[in-house]
Amino acid sequence: MADAFDWGLLEPAGALGASVGDDRVLAAMVAVEAALAGAWREIEGTGSASDAPAFDVDAIDRGRLVDGARDAGVPIIALVAQLREQAGEAADAVHRGATSQDIVDTALVLVSRDGLARAAEALATAADALAELAVRYRATPVVARTLSQPAEPTTVGAQFATWLDGVSSAREALDALSAAGFPVQLGGAVGTGAAFVRASGRDDAPAILRAAVARRLGLSDPGRAWHTDRTPAVAIADAAARVCVATGRIGRDLALAARDGAFRPAGGGGSSAMPHKRNPVDAVILSANGLRAPGLLATVHAATLSSDARPAGEWHAEWQAWRGLLRLALESAEVLANAIADLVVEASPNADGVAADDVDLAAAGAVVDAAIARHGRTDRSR
Amino acid sequence: MADAFDWGLLEPAGALGASVGDDRVLAAMVAVEAALAGAWREIEGTGSASDAPAFDVDAIDRGRLVDGARDAGVPIIALVAQLREQAGEAADAVHRGATSQDIVDTALVLVSRDGLARAAEALATAADALAELAVRYRATPVVARTLSQPAEPTTVGAQFATWLDGVSSAREALDALSAAGFPVQLGGAVGTGAAFVRASGRDDAPAILRAAVARRLGLSDPGRAWHTDRTPAVAIADAAARVCVATGRIGRDLALAARDGAFRPAGGGGSSAMPHKRNPVDAVILSANGLRAPGLLATVHAATLSSDARPAGEWHAEWQAWRGLLRLALESAEVLANAIADLVVEASPNADGVAADDVDLAAAGAVVDAAIARHGRTDRSR
Amino acid sequence: MADAFDWGLLEPAGALGASVGDDRVLAAMVAVEAALAGAWREIEGTGSASDAPAFDVDAIDRGRLVDGARDAGVPIIALVAQLREQAGEAADAVHRGATSQDIVDTALVLVSRDGLARAAEALATAADALAELAVRYRATPVVARTLSQPAEPTTVGAQFATWLDGVSSAREALDALSAAGFPVQLGGAVGTGAAFVRASGRDDAPAILRAAVARRLGLSDPGRAWHTDRTPAVAIADAAARVCVATGRIGRDLALAARDGAFRPAGGGGSSAMPHKRNPVDAVILSANGLRAPGLLATVHAATLSSDARPAGEWHAEWQAWRGLLRLALESAEVLANAIADLVVEASPNADGVAADDVDLAAAGAVVDAAIARHGRTDRSR
Amino acid sequence: MADAFDWGLLEPAGALGASVGDDRVLAAMVAVEAALAGAWREIEGTGSASDAPAFDVDAIDRGRLVDGARDAGVPIIALVAQLREQAGEAADAVHRGATSQDIVDTALVLVSRDGLARAAEALATAADALAELAVRYRATPVVARTLSQPAEPTTVGAQFATWLDGVSSAREALDALSAAGFPVQLGGAVGTGAAFVRASGRDDAPAILRAAVARRLGLSDPGRAWHTDRTPAVAIADAAARVCVATGRIGRDLALAARDGAFRPAGGGGSSAMPHKRNPVDAVILSANGLRAPGLLATVHAATLSSDARPAGEWHAEWQAWRGLLRLALESAEVLANAIADLVVEASPNADGVAADDVDLAAAGAVVDAAIARHGRTDRSR
Repeated sequence: MADAFDWGLLEPAGALGASVGDDRVLAAMVAVEAALAGAWREIEGTGSASDAPAFDVDAIDRGRLVDGARDAGVPIIALVAQLREQAGEAADAVHRGATSQDIVDTALVLVSRDGLARAAEALATAADALAELAVRYRATPVVARTLSQPAEPTTVGAQFATWLDGVSSAREALDALSAAGFPVQLGGAVGTGAAFVRASGRDDAPAILRAAVARRLGLSDPGRAWHTDRTPAVAIADAAARVCVATGRIGRDLALAARDGAFRPAGGGGSSAMPHKRNPVDAVILSANGLRAPGLLATVHAATLSSDARPAGEWHAEWQAWRGLLRLALESAEVLANAIADLVVEASPNADGVAADDVDLAAAGAVVDAAIARHGRTDRSR
Repeated sequence: MADAFDWGLLEPAGALGASVGDDRVLAAMVAVEAALAGAWREIEGTGSASDAPAFDVDAIDRGRLVDGARDAGVPIIALVAQLREQAGEAADAVHRGATSQDIVDTALVLVSRDGLARAAEALATAADALAELAVRYRATPVVARTLSQPAEPTTVGAQFATWLDGVSSAREALDALSAAGFPVQLGGAVGTGAAFVRASGRDDAPAILRAAVARRLGLSDPGRAWHTDRTPAVAIADAAARVCVATGRIGRDLALAARDGAFRPAGGGGSSAMPHKRNPVDAVILSANGLRAPGLLATVHAATLSSDARPAGEWHAEWQAWRGLLRLALESAEVLANAIADLVVEASPNADGVAADDVDLAAAGAVVDAAIARHGRTDRSR
Repeated sequence: MADAFDWGLLEPAGALGASVGDDRVLAAMVAVEAALAGAWREIEGTGSASDAPAFDVDAIDRGRLVDGARDAGVPIIALVAQLREQAGEAADAVHRGATSQDIVDTALVLVSRDGLARAAEALATAADALAELAVRYRATPVVARTLSQPAEPTTVGAQFATWLDGVSSAREALDALSAAGFPVQLGGAVGTGAAFVRASGRDDAPAILRAAVARRLGLSDPGRAWHTDRTPAVAIADAAARVCVATGRIGRDLALAARDGAFRPAGGGGSSAMPHKRNPVDAVILSANGLRAPGLLATVHAATLSSDARPAGEWHAEWQAWRGLLRLALESAEVLANAIADLVVEASPNADGVAADDVDLAAAGAVVDAAIARHGRTDRSR
Repeated sequence: MADAFDWGLLEPAGALGASVGDDRVLAAMVAVEAALAGAWREIEGTGSASDAPAFDVDAIDRGRLVDGARDAGVPIIALVAQLREQAGEAADAVHRGATSQDIVDTALVLVSRDGLARAAEALATAADALAELAVRYRATPVVARTLSQPAEPTTVGAQFATWLDGVSSAREALDALSAAGFPVQLGGAVGTGAAFVRASGRDDAPAILRAAVARRLGLSDPGRAWHTDRTPAVAIADAAARVCVATGRIGRDLALAARDGAFRPAGGGGSSAMPHKRNPVDAVILSANGLRAPGLLATVHAATLSSDARPAGEWHAEWQAWRGLLRLALESAEVLANAIADLVVEASPNADGVAADDVDLAAAGAVVDAAIARHGRTDRSR
């Protein structure tokens, strides 16, 4: 039994986030097992540094995985059984010395690395478009609001500049995460990797295998197992949430602008009740995802209260929230890029009678200049 | 495009919660549209009180729904288009006067009613089993712990009685929710139902249609639209979370009992690293679900900060969290029933040297008696 | 050492919520100890049904409580020591047979009962004012917005009616909580009350004392200890959060109305940068409190994952979040009453060109009528 | 009216977190105003680079601040009025060109910098002690548990090493935050600083004043206003939460160790019901704080959905949650240092019959070595 239970009915931008779906996670799990099996051949001198079993992901019976997950609490036992069937004679090298957590954690890190890289690309696209808009409307006056009230003059360009700053902050967070490395997990049953030593007769097997698996997957070698210190999971979740911080706020402003602002979304979605109506769909999705991220982040944090060498619940509680944050980040980054590309800036209704003087324009211009300069620095690392 | 994006790989008890999956929500949406179309025939005198279009849910192209959801922020426009195709000549009665929120809200209420009814059944089964255990071990002494330390004597039966009390509390919460009624939503574009009046020429059309749709679906008629007062959604979410309150705590105790307690799970799951090991899988799932519920509940509450006649994000943020809580409640109730059925009570290692005197046994016995009596009262409403 | 660490600098409506502050909680703790000591006299035939020691709350050294809380994790040991000093010869009846959790839980229930009663009064005041406004502006047309866009006509009265419905929902939640009863906690060290039996020589002492303490404090007798089934705490937290659901949404609408709506707050707060500006302070506080409640509710729920006869952390994690929700509810209800009293409805800028026809007005009028009728029913229980 | 509403009754480690209390925040607000006033003298050539008004914090009437906060939603207007009274002739330089958000944000950053520095010191102390313990018990065998079950042998030293790794992760997070800089906020009414230009006649006044205030307070100059991009607040909140990630998990393990582990807390707290009992109070506080942090972090993230140049609620919702996380981090770090210093390692009951062979010991030893090496690297930045 592996009927889809969620195919996107309640997730309007779900297709954008499909690349962190179960099929992708499964492919990553298989890649981790392949990398480990390949690393074993390497350590035993029976395979090259790149040689690894070619598992057939499509042939894996998802129903057996789902049934196995109910039996064991994790799908890995059922997965390993199928991979060993595929491996034939080489079955004993599959999963040798590893524990379920090694596979699930590393797979989620892999999916995170790829998903956040895509999010970073979309943010870069949005940032470039925002930089252009900020420059183009550098001197277009508008009355800024605070606490819902008209406050003081600024410019449309300066408003775009603050959005750009938010996107630059999110990109810096993603860059910092990448720079710190996406770490492989490989600790065996209780984090010491003793089974790797036992199976190989080599004291350095845990370190050698961990380094080899990391190299094969393009991950970093953290020099340790982090089975109980969930900081790497938290760091990824935090970075994904930072994307939603930047995009959620722009969603809010876009929705308000659709109300009384100096710009509006092009196109826009229809209404089942009012066919003529153009709804700011991208703004709605960005805001909604921004509202959904905090609860998931709280769950990832609640799940860090680990215990023993693996806790009885916390680790399992982490999976869906972790992946959920990736999905929200990925969706939001791509929706943002679309929203900014579609933006139409109109003669501002607010601008009528805006008493913006040279001081206001110069001060707002400096905000634009600073954001553009920061964007340039952020972009250099691209 | 409607590939499953989640089929249960990261949701060990997912199959148990599949009855609140997207297919079920879609079927509920179609049922709501059918009820409304039928109610229109009724009001127009062209159909009986039970007559309604027979839509073919399986024939609905899920890919078009997903694409449509991305375009419009909700899948209803794309759904209505397909239902109108199915309806042929009767197309104009489909969705007449309604808004997307009417359909989504009512569908989620329907799914909630049915999902929570199943959860209530499973809790009742677990409660009966717990009542038996409480009675059977009424006088089996054990040292209770507080703050992780041995404290004072109690009995194994009294421990089961506190679990039973938790389950009774959850059942009372579900009963109270049912008693208050699962309300239909039908307010039209801005909650006044003016389009119903306009289409029918009857001032009482909003009330009549709302009552008819409620009757057809077995829901209650709230006498109003609750599009912006999200209390019904919060009440359902709260009741689902109460299930996780009861089951999560038992999961914790079961996991600790697997460590040093007077009972242990029968069977138990395997380990990918240690084939001989028996893991308390049910306990792990119950605890994990208990850890996941609070973040989702927070999201449902954050989504209540509605505005206007429909907010630009909050409503959309509510869907997945609402359904997620239903899934956790349903999974948890069924896993609990399984866990209690499988429970093996052993000669307690703690019981050695337990200096429980008659006072301790009598006091603990009174706890059992009270919980059994309460269980009886709760059960009467079954 | 008992310097105030929080005196309201970062809590703009803090003074309104002071009645759930530490002084009030301390007074409630002392009242619980007095009720228990009085109940002991009663059971021993040395005192009447109302006789109880007259402890002097003001004389309690708060510094000793704070120091004691750090030593023991709870302030009760240090409190009991001081109360025994005050009791002199009657010292041995103070806290006899009880555990810290009995006192803390019951005190928080007491504070909840009184705090929520005050919130209910403020909500009733706001509801009456809203009912008046809904009637007065029953036929004043305005264009309702959905997803930030102009949608269809409604009336200002119907908008007030949806606010009134939200307030009625919150009042119903508070009424349901009261009707279910605010339960006393009295279970002794591990929930069986064995020490009450031992000290009195009476098997029925746990039940008798629990009933007597409940009667003395005006609480309900739940017929059990709920030390590990945290449903009563969750029920209170949920009801408090429901208040914030109603008030937070009105805060949002008020803030948006201050932008482009048919009404605005009278008065309003100043700005440190723009002295002429009138900020919608009540709206801001209502919205902010609405945003703060979900995280606290999540914490109360996370804390329900109890274990043993008292968990090593969860119970302690509950206190501040529980009290925090009471504070938000109390503040929000009182700020709402003030905000509604101050509301100024203006000739709507939106109303110009509103093409509201008789159908729109009649449909909106029916919304008002239904909300007024519901308000009447809700109010009857007052 | 400025009665303390919270003085620590429900916050067992509250005294440790008092240095982020309201008095400290007020002092920071005054320091920011003094730095700004001093920067004005500097820019006008009437004062040196260090010259600033000497405000008397103790003389500030807290009651007026609390009343003012209720009127204005922020306490700054009432604070500025009092500081201007103190400043006499120099009154007009006080708060010149600034907005309330400049003062509140910068004050909270200041309090964060100092609070987290203290937390870092306590973590360093704990880490040194853990490093010693890891080395001392490098070869003491113990059976590690996973999912509550005995799994495979490890050593007590390796268990301490995983705690040390968690603490190193938290210290790295704090170091990374410090390295990125604690940024001043100075943007004026709408983030452009136009009022600084207007008051000075200098186009570069916003940049000059921001740099000067940053220098005076020992903060970094972010080159922009971040009034609507709440990333700096989120980054601080995240780092504080990371402290709770490390300490919460150790709290869990300490509590379990008090149950069946190889070590136990020395001393320990008493019980109001069982005077002989020694409770693991530090472990309880660490766990409780770990459970409380996620909800507060969720609130800080929810508050990032800013809008306009200052939102109507989100910013206000952030304050208490931000400060709350600082308090939890500070308390937890200091409690951890105490807990580790007090730890007593006993002949393990588990060690009886532990069949740890040389492979197990060597593998566990490598875990210790890696953690010690990492600790050394982390410590170098001290």
